[in-house]
Amino acid sequence: MAVMPIKRLAIIGVGLIGGSLARALKRAGTVGEVVGCGRNAADLQKGVELGVIDRYSTEPAQAVAGADMVLVATPVGSMRSIFEKIAAHLDSDAIVTDAGSVKASVISDARAVLGGTFARFVPGHPIAGTEQSGIAASFADLYVDHRVILTPVADTGEGPCKAVQAMWEGAGAYVEIMTPEAHDEILAYTSHLPHMVAYALVDCLARAEPTTELLRFAAGGFRDITRIASSSAVMWRDIALANDAALLKSLEAYRDSIDAVMNAIRDGDGAALESLFERARQTRESLIAAKGKRAGG
Amino acid sequence: MAVMPIKRLAIIGVGLIGGSLARALKRAGTVGEVVGCGRNAADLQKGVELGVIDRYSTEPAQAVAGADMVLVATPVGSMRSIFEKIAAHLDSDAIVTDAGSVKASVISDARAVLGGTFARFVPGHPIAGTEQSGIAASFADLYVDHRVILTPVADTGEGPCKAVQAMWEGAGAYVEIMTPEAHDEILAYTSHLPHMVAYALVDCLARAEPTTELLRFAAGGFRDITRIASSSAVMWRDIALANDAALLKSLEAYRDSIDAVMNAIRDGDGAALESLFERARQTRESLIAAKGKRAGG
Repeated sequence: MAVMPIKRLAIIGVGLIGGSLARALKRAGTVGEVVGCGRNAADLQKGVELGVIDRYSTEPAQAVAGADMVLVATPVGSMRSIFEKIAAHLDSDAIVTDAGSVKASVISDARAVLGGTFARFVPGHPIAGTEQSGIAASFADLYVDHRVILTPVADTGEGPCKAVQAMWEGAGAYVEIMTPEAHDEILAYTSHLPHMVAYALVDCLARAEPTTELLRFAAGGFRDITRIASSSAVMWRDIALANDAALLKSLEAYRDSIDAVMNAIRDGDGAALESLFERARQTRESLIAAKGKRAGG
Repeated sequence: MAVMPIKRLAIIGVGLIGGSLARALKRAGTVGEVVGCGRNAADLQKGVELGVIDRYSTEPAQAVAGADMVLVATPVGSMRSIFEKIAAHLDSDAIVTDAGSVKASVISDARAVLGGTFARFVPGHPIAGTEQSGIAASFADLYVDHRVILTPVADTGEGPCKAVQAMWEGAGAYVEIMTPEAHDEILAYTSHLPHMVAYALVDCLARAEPTTELLRFAAGGFRDITRIASSSAVMWRDIALANDAALLKSLEAYRDSIDAVMNAIRDGDGAALESLFERARQTRESLIAAKGKRAGG
């Protein structure tokens, strides 16, 4: 689709996600000015020096003034208060989108607070990121060949939705549309649950005695499996609470799998263990294989 | 310590572990001949062509004839039958060691079967490996700067223990001595538990509906956390059964951590979630930091 350049993009929460979008759009030449907003002026100043943003404000209301596109990329637990702060200061045709990892709760917050602007709010979630965070970790290629999910609802305007899609495509991503409920359930299994699993695994080691001795022996496999436990605690606290129902459902299913492993070990049931391990191994191999033939944007 | 070169090394089970040791010792010039043994002649022939082994036999009794050092590197569930097959065919001063991920059960098998040779059996475990397996995946650097744990018992001779230590040091590893019980408990937490966690996570996704749709969205974090679920199902079946008591203890502790996460989500207890996630994050960071200042061999 024809890309309508953004004149002024305001990013509330300029970390890895927002910073990388700014870098990508600047490189693509599809954005005029980028205004950053956050709580830490020193970080934002660094963003200016790195050329990620052009200027900044620590006040969301000021940052969105005159912007035709606003991206809210804060932890999902802060979004409602951000929406409250900006609602009265948005341009009359400004489009608002977000980068939250949970969609139903963010939509509910936006609907409650944004008033007439809700029709120009396009719920979104770029499926990209590393365990790194912060503006200094941002890079222009983060979204290249990555998926961005948009979850418009009945009230969402078609024009705003297409504009947000074009923005992400300009950053190299391909966009997929689904319902907020489908998004939240899929992400519960494929992203939120793995994070809980990794946090719990490190937690259990941290509670064992003597932890220091154990850590000394934690080999490569342990470091890999717990990499995502280095992610921001606040961000994941918010995600866990915002997607509580779907996440608890996936955690229950996961605990059934852990129980199946424990029961097989207790019973000395080698056939059950081997069949569970082998099915898991094959499922993961098919996941790696499928990665190569992903559907186009 | 002075390295006494090995004249003839017999390796029963020439996969990643045995093949990489052969490559490392050949490169270091601390081995004369390497004789491979396995069930698949085609694989062994490939090992000869790759220069990993010099010749092979599919019969353990033949493979160990005339060897002064024997490494048993099969899944731990097969070791007892290997010991039975070789016991009567070992040279009178041959040293036997193993590479099993569990030590108490292997020691018990060796004690029951090896007879007089038990004093020359040195239980060992190289803490190295990838999710790859097979002789083709072997490489000479696998053990460089990696830890090998030896777990001699009261009956284990000092000379054999020193010879096995020298062998691993010749491959670039540093050797640590501990009791079999300490080994099995530490490895339960830092290696065996993480594998169960990864297998269970993929299993739970494989049981969900529709799995294909879910797999399509499994992002980088999911692939990382489940990497070790691509490991050999037979090998991990054997480990889980051989280290059942320590592994069940660590799985109980792990389930407590999962329950703590689930309870906090159910209660909407953001403070509890954030504190658990943050403690896990810091513990993992200290693990990464500790990696740099590892104690020397």
